[in-house]
Amino acid sequence: MRLSGRCQTAPLPEEGPGAQGCACLSTEDHSLGWVRSFRPQKQNLFLHVNDGSSLKSLQVIAPAGMNDPLLGFGCAVEVKGILKKSPHSKQPVELEAEQIRVIGECNPVDFPFKIKERHSLEYIRQFLHLRCRTNAFSSLLRIRSEATAAVHSYFKNNGFLLIHTPTITSNDCEGAGELFQVEPPGTTFANEGSFFSVPVYLTVSGQLHLEVMSGAFPRVYTFGPTFRAENSQSRRHLAEFFMVEAEISFTESIEDLTKVMEELFRSVTESVLAHCEEDVDLFHKYVAPGHRVSPEGHSITYTEAIDILKRSSETFTFPTDWGCDLMTEHEKFLVKHCGNIPVFVTDYPYDLKPFYARDNQDHPKHTAAAVDLLVPGVGELCGGSLREERLDLLRSRLGEYLDLRRFGSVPHGGFGLGFERYLQCILGVDNIKDVIPFPRFSHSCLL
Amino acid sequence: MRLSGRCQTAPLPEEGPGAQGCACLSTEDHSLGWVRSFRPQKQNLFLHVNDGSSLKSLQVIAPAGMNDPLLGFGCAVEVKGILKKSPHSKQPVELEAEQIRVIGECNPVDFPFKIKERHSLEYIRQFLHLRCRTNAFSSLLRIRSEATAAVHSYFKNNGFLLIHTPTITSNDCEGAGELFQVEPPGTTFANEGSFFSVPVYLTVSGQLHLEVMSGAFPRVYTFGPTFRAENSQSRRHLAEFFMVEAEISFTESIEDLTKVMEELFRSVTESVLAHCEEDVDLFHKYVAPGHRVSPEGHSITYTEAIDILKRSSETFTFPTDWGCDLMTEHEKFLVKHCGNIPVFVTDYPYDLKPFYARDNQDHPKHTAAAVDLLVPGVGELCGGSLREERLDLLRSRLGEYLDLRRFGSVPHGGFGLGFERYLQCILGVDNIKDVIPFPRFSHSCLL
Repeated sequence: MRLSGRCQTAPLPEEGPGAQGCACLSTEDHSLGWVRSFRPQKQNLFLHVNDGSSLKSLQVIAPAGMNDPLLGFGCAVEVKGILKKSPHSKQPVELEAEQIRVIGECNPVDFPFKIKERHSLEYIRQFLHLRCRTNAFSSLLRIRSEATAAVHSYFKNNGFLLIHTPTITSNDCEGAGELFQVEPPGTTFANEGSFFSVPVYLTVSGQLHLEVMSGAFPRVYTFGPTFRAENSQSRRHLAEFFMVEAEISFTESIEDLTKVMEELFRSVTESVLAHCEEDVDLFHKYVAPGHRVSPEGHSITYTEAIDILKRSSETFTFPTDWGCDLMTEHEKFLVKHCGNIPVFVTDYPYDLKPFYARDNQDHPKHTAAAVDLLVPGVGELCGGSLREERLDLLRSRLGEYLDLRRFGSVPHGGFGLGFERYLQCILGVDNIKDVIPFPRFSHSCLL
Repeated sequence: MRLSGRCQTAPLPEEGPGAQGCACLSTEDHSLGWVRSFRPQKQNLFLHVNDGSSLKSLQVIAPAGMNDPLLGFGCAVEVKGILKKSPHSKQPVELEAEQIRVIGECNPVDFPFKIKERHSLEYIRQFLHLRCRTNAFSSLLRIRSEATAAVHSYFKNNGFLLIHTPTITSNDCEGAGELFQVEPPGTTFANEGSFFSVPVYLTVSGQLHLEVMSGAFPRVYTFGPTFRAENSQSRRHLAEFFMVEAEISFTESIEDLTKVMEELFRSVTESVLAHCEEDVDLFHKYVAPGHRVSPEGHSITYTEAIDILKRSSETFTFPTDWGCDLMTEHEKFLVKHCGNIPVFVTDYPYDLKPFYARDNQDHPKHTAAAVDLLVPGVGELCGGSLREERLDLLRSRLGEYLDLRRFGSVPHGGFGLGFERYLQCILGVDNIKDVIPFPRFSHSCLL
């Protein structure tokens, strides 16, 4: 987690070779990739060729006569030659070129990224179709791919079945007003003439669909895009974002849920740190200097959280009475109070949580078995609850939701984790648009 | 692949315990799960308890006195007792119950699935929210989860980076007319007042977004939902389906592409057959008797395909002249002709393929470097092509698509594989709605 301030608007590392080494597309005598640095000298040409497999590039040395007017920063090349032990300590090997072929040229005037210049995340974000060519965004994409694999590994190793929950749904879930509706162009959103005969929406959560599967599988999860038509340009919101959601059956304990959330967080983070060390370092060095990630968390109840807030000398804008929702300022304070580590807050007031959260029946306080995971810099990363499985307590509510409780229903609970917020959290990235390949938000849907 | 006829409308295996064995949630003295069979006898009760981890259920024996009016087919139970070596050869162990607790009851009159009855896939499809409780659909879901993991493993082990391509896009890809448009309810699809300021659609393909990433990574893939607003109730089409798509850079050879398609198919199929043997057997035994899968494929050119069709004694409804598209009847014939194995057809007439397919410049025939994979029972499973990277040949076309070719462009190609069709193909399932958890098609979007 971030422990110190970050300098998001500061320039990133220069576009250049990164740490030197040997790249993946390179074999003994052959290298394919993109030129990340180019130094023509009197006797020799020096190139760094990167193939996307890591920040490392391969140093290529060629006689000056092999220069080509098309050769330069950003172009794609094929180099044939002899791989030799490098005389320089900063790279193990280098390629002595016998032939260089420019596969794809790159006009340096038009190309928006310049050699040896430092570009901010804001600057590169303007060029969505080209930003994968920068050091920072190529690192982000490798981290994102690794984190995704780690999510699937965690669940597979822990007996969870992956369910592909649908994107289009006729269910408006929590009755949230922030839905996108879907129709072929030219159709009206009427009921009978419409494509699906009923109004349909982009999913805001796969929870209901996972609960369906909880009736046959004790552990299920989904990982895919979810949607909110929130009219927000904030650094924390996207119209389309990725969410990890899980449901666990045969449990009546919120600790069972918290344990899975904590293990998932730790396991994915450890995997990313182990397999993408250099890429993560780029963020911790240039994007959020001093940022640290602590995979260990701490758990408190909502009631304890309110006590901590009330006892503090801090002045808050919003009230801190029992029964009030925790606001961003409160969440930040609690995370700091607990030592800038992930904080699980459990057992919220019943009235603050959705109808499906399980009633703790602990009058007079009256809480629900719900848990939120708060993390430094990001705030709420995960939210979950035990689900109310008792038919009589649900009777006054939804139709099919009730049917799920009629046939061999079991106590269960689940949670959702915002994948982009997770990436922001471990990397210290301030703006959510910088951790997703193609950000969609109000008034912006490029490509 | 299917070699013999199938009997899709025939009833499935009876709802019952499946092959006996020990279930996952069961420990030495404890079992949680759902009752799959229930036989009260004079002296003893016999139950089979299934926990979703496989078709296998645990046999439970209890004294007749432990019967409970709520105990029966479909209910969820917790059983405590002693796990013993079974005297019967068909199961290694059984649980002698000391205590049985009904966790969730299941009214046998209302529950749509009956003990010892055989239900067809058509019948169980009517109960989308409960069909995971049947043997057949729980097998399907385990196979689907395993196949997904195998897709990710194949790509990870072969140096591909996963890219989360977007669901909402302002790009209408191939200009296909069958798009879904997206807006918050109550908004008109005008340009300026709309949420994204431009008309946006649900993606029909992640190809363009992968091509963006091909400019920095030699091997990328995506796996997620794609959409078609096709007004079809056919057994082959869905409005929302899952697609695996990949792009490979630094290649000018269609064989490189075909090789990845073939390896992907073989690797995923081998993994499913190895890890879900019993679940696959259920389909090959009851759903498509005699169905076999051959992971080995055969490759022919379009020109060879036309020769085969012309030389055959078969009468076709559609013409088989060079330049005509291959129709379903032709695809079926070719697959059968090659011995009911996967058939790659390459180098189609240039005019039959989209603008981005690479021109083979082989006048007078004039073909494009495109490939389709045809499989028994399903038809086209995969389609791919080398992409035209030569700027001058593309100049008269798209805007940003051109920009991707300006800065260090490299020869590349890619393909898409329909994941549901893949599952139909390996399992012999006739209707695509039976291989996806929540099918969406025209006039149907349940849950």
